[in-house]
Formats: sequence, structure tokens, C-alpha cells
Amino acid sequence: MFRSALLRSCKPRLVRCLSSRVSNPNLAAMAGDDYLYHIGLNPASDDLAATFGDVRFVCLGGSVPRMGEFAARAAHELGVAPSAAQPIGKTDRYSLFKVGPALISSHGMGQPSMSILLHEIAKLLHYAGARDPVWMRMGTSGGVGVAPGTVVVSTEGVNGMLESGYELPILGRRTSRPSLFGAATVGAIVDAAAARPETAAMVAGGRVVRGKTMSADCFYEGQGRLDGALCEYGEADKMAFLRRAHDKGVRNIEMEALQFGAFTHRLGIRAAACCVTLLDRLEGDQVRASPEQLAEWDAALGDVVLSYIKHELGLPPPKC
Amino acid sequence: MFRSALLRSCKPRLVRCLSSRVSNPNLAAMAGDDYLYHIGLNPASDDLAATFGDVRFVCLGGSVPRMGEFAARAAHELGVAPSAAQPIGKTDRYSLFKVGPALISSHGMGQPSMSILLHEIAKLLHYAGARDPVWMRMGTSGGVGVAPGTVVVSTEGVNGMLESGYELPILGRRTSRPSLFGAATVGAIVDAAAARPETAAMVAGGRVVRGKTMSADCFYEGQGRLDGALCEYGEADKMAFLRRAHDKGVRNIEMEALQFGAFTHRLGIRAAACCVTLLDRLEGDQVRASPEQLAEWDAALGDVVLSYIKHELGLPPPKC
Repeated sequence: MFRSALLRSCKPRLVRCLSSRVSNPNLAAMAGDDYLYHIGLNPASDDLAATFGDVRFVCLGGSVPRMGEFAARAAHELGVAPSAAQPIGKTDRYSLFKVGPALISSHGMGQPSMSILLHEIAKLLHYAGARDPVWMRMGTSGGVGVAPGTVVVSTEGVNGMLESGYELPILGRRTSRPSLFGAATVGAIVDAAAARPETAAMVAGGRVVRGKTMSADCFYEGQGRLDGALCEYGEADKMAFLRRAHDKGVRNIEMEALQFGAFTHRLGIRAAACCVTLLDRLEGDQVRASPEQLAEWDAALGDVVLSYIKHELGLPPPKC
Repeated sequence: MFRSALLRSCKPRLVRCLSSRVSNPNLAAMAGDDYLYHIGLNPASDDLAATFGDVRFVCLGGSVPRMGEFAARAAHELGVAPSAAQPIGKTDRYSLFKVGPALISSHGMGQPSMSILLHEIAKLLHYAGARDPVWMRMGTSGGVGVAPGTVVVSTEGVNGMLESGYELPILGRRTSRPSLFGAATVGAIVDAAAARPETAAMVAGGRVVRGKTMSADCFYEGQGRLDGALCEYGEADKMAFLRRAHDKGVRNIEMEALQFGAFTHRLGIRAAACCVTLLDRLEGDQVRASPEQLAEWDAALGDVVLSYIKHELGLPPPKC
């Protein structure tokens, strides 16, 4: 009630600030003197509101070249000047782009690498006064009982114990936060994919599915692969675990969604993890698809995310 | 005894294989059909022995440009053709260089990102038949009670509970492995730094120290910073934790040494984590040093690692 009254009475800038998603009373005391070290932007010297105040979508994916290509593609499909697909800020760790209403960035591999970026983008959007954008992870993953090339939209993230809790020691105390993705955002993405001609066939063909996503802090042992430098179990143990994960609703395994879901859920950020599968782990451990096949699946993931963005923006489908 | 007899009787190629450091019986059954997906090399199609069989040093650090610059510098100081400082294999996730006897690579940020690289480099060196190289992480870190610009050579890695155990769920079971760095390798690096004119003043000035390194899966909350997007504690809680860490022998905090120490210790790989501190966390959270100062400290870290490599190779000091 207090907040509603405040929203009605306050100036536009204050309204924007209230709609941002951070939870740290110390930031106000810093009075904008907060250098976002890993992305190289500073609210004290960069006009973040001018550049990022209109962000409605945040698109994050692992590798630098993949997200650079997605930025160029997004500029083309959203009718934004190609010059928008140039990185902003420091580029030694992440590459960040602003394409129309979309902030696009690489996040590296693994939950800790992603975590740094999430903290700094949340602060960036807070200082910029962005209004409740939707955050999407666009990842690659190993499928569990789904065909390669399927896009799994996560309902929740689970850890290597198959539990929905992202664990992090903070000041010597173990914390665990649930990793949940809102059904409304997940549903909106799947519904947009079904409604748009670019992606309707994928949905009809069962290539866009909802499911739990297991995130591991390791590509080899942590995901039950048999081909790491170190392996202390056998094929039967691995298959028993993967089948147990499948029975619990896990449809893919990767290395970020759990932390992403925990961070965004804790801050009330609308979010979804959309990951394409490159293999079915029930069939093997190695990625055997050709570069052409991998590029096609990556494009299909981009189709799903761009369908949602264009649907939200009310853009027409492409002409045939 | 069996191994000694085998070493005496077998062919050179077998001897080389026995000296490598992996622990996975499944690799033999793959008969070399093992695509190292994230670095883009394949023992079935690339002559790994010809390129990597002579590796004696593995130098790993977080960012791509920083390790590219180190590769160029190493080529210059080790008398290797500058063309060696060109990346090998795929470059979308890591950048890997071979400079004389040194394999140099970026590893991204965080333990999971580093873990992928460690598995694939261990397999790479196994297939190449490299003979027991020394692996070194060259990182940046926050100091705990040491002056900015100090190089901390880790004696062991500890987690956010200040315990020496790297935890990873494997097939739904929690595992914990000790993270220890051999005193002989740590001592050899510090002794070389003291003996070489390039680095003797650093050691004499207390800017090369041994200590425990805490690794967190987060730059903000996991390291007790007050300036993340999310913070549920205050200055006094933070300082109490950092002082407790210091009392337990922790001299710096970063995001990789714990997993690095656990992996290499488990496989019997000689290893050291050498990280330069960019600030003293007992004084603050933000990195305030100028780009010039940061470059100078990074160069000092390179001095320590190159002093060790040149000392091992018997190379003379540079002419004044």
C-alpha cells in the first residue's frame, strides 16, 4: 500500500528505481560510486540510463562468438541498426551488446562465471532504471531422454543431488536457495513459439519441451560422463543415475540454470532458461554432431528466443 | 615393482604413456577416439605427441587477452619464435598456446570453467605422452592482510567454510577431495624467485608469500563483499569472517585454486597456484587500482612464473 501510494506520487526517475531488482541496502550508501569491474561500466561516469534504461529483455549465453552472432541476428530481425551489435564496456571476460530493447551478453562457462555477470547486470539495470525486463539464458546442454536439437525450457533448476537448491557458503555459513522459474514466463515463451510461424513446427514436433534442468559444476564427473581425465564409476552406475534423473523430471543437464534460477527467483526477476540439447546422454557422452548440425540447433534456439521477443513487441512474422 | 619392470622392458611410447597423469580405465577402451570438445583437439586426427609431447610447464590464467599477452612475453623471454604465440584449436571458450616447453591457456572464471579445461588438458598431455609437467595457475585475487601487488603461492585451497575440501556431487553422491599443493613445488617457485635477479627484490620486500587460498563460487556474496546485487549481512559480519579467515592462514581469496589443487593432488600432478592480489579485502571491496597499476602487478606475477621456468631450464638472467 505504501509502495502504491509512493508510485502514484513520485517522479518518473523514482518510479523506475523502485521497479529495479536488487536487494542490498549498501548500494544506496555508495551513491553511484560503484564500478562494475568485470563489465567495465560505472554509474558515476557512464550514462547508464540513456543506454540501458529501455531494456526489456536480457539474453545471456555462454560463448563470446555465439552471443556476438546472436546480437547481429537480433539486430537484423528486430530492425535495429547493425552497428548495435558492437560490444560495450570491457571485453576481456564478457562481451555485452545493446540491441534495441535487448541487452545481450556472454556469461562464460559455469555457475560462478555466470554469477558475476548476474550481479553486475542486476546493478547495471538498477542504476539505469530499467523496468522489470525478462532475463533469458540461451544455453547448450546434454539431453536426458529427449532427441538432440530439442529446446528445453526449464521449470526449475536442480543440483547434482537432484534437489532444487543452489548452495553457496556465505561468511562461513552454508546457504541454499530454491531455483524456480515462474510458470507465467515459461508458458509465455512456449506459447509464443507455438503461435509464431518461425517456430510453430518445432513445438508441434515436440522439439520445445518443459522440464527440470540439472546443473553441475563439472562437465565430466559432475555430469556422470565416463570420458573425463578422472572417473571412479562405470557405465551401469552412470545409467542408473541418468535414469533416476529422468524419472524425477530432468530433461537436460548443463552448468548454469540452477544458479540463474536461484538468483532471479530471490530477486523477483522474471526469467527463463532455454537450452538446446546437443546429444541424448542416455545414448552416450561425446558430442558427435557435425558443425553444420550444431549451427542448425543453435539457430533453432535463437528462433525460440526471438519468437518470444518479437511476440512481446508485436512484430509481424517474417515475409516468406 | 610391476611398473618398474614394465618401464625397463617396454617401448618408449609406452613409457611416455605411463608417465602421464589421468585416472580413467575407460580411456584405453576409447582407443584414441576422444574428441576434446571444448579445446577442439582430437587424438584421432591431430598429432598431439608432435605438438605437446615436450610440454614441461602448463600455465593457466583466467582471461583470454591476459594469457595471450603472457604467451607473447614467454616467447620473447624463452627465446621462442613469436609465431608460437598463436592460439591452437578452438578459441570460442579457451585460448591455448604452445610456447617452447610451455602450454599456456586461459581457463575462464570460476572452478567449473577451469575444471573442464583441466580434464581436457590432462587427457591432451596423456595422449601426447608428456612427461610429468608442472602446472601453474596464474591468477588475480583479493588479498587478506597482505599489500596489494603481493603474489601469494598457495599451500592449500580452502572452501567458503574455510575447510580444505573441494565438494562435488557425483552420480548423486557428495564427494569431497583435499586441495593440497606439494611443498616441493611451492618451495621451488619461491626459491627460484628469490634466486633470480628479476624477482629477488620482490621476495626480499615480502611481495611473494606462501599462504592458504580461499576459493568461492561467487565474486560477491561468496567472498563476503558488501557491493553485490544481493547482500544479507553487514560490515561487522564481513570483517569478522575475513579476520577469521586470516587467523586460519588464508592470505587471498579467488575462484579457482581449490578445485585446481583438488584435481592435481588427486592425479599426482605437480602444481602451484600463484595469484597476485589487487586489493586488501581488510580495507575494502572494490578494485580501485589504476589500469597502469594493475598492469604492473600482472607483470610481477608473470615475473615470478617466468623466473621459475627459466630457472628450471637453466636460462641466464636478462642482460641489464
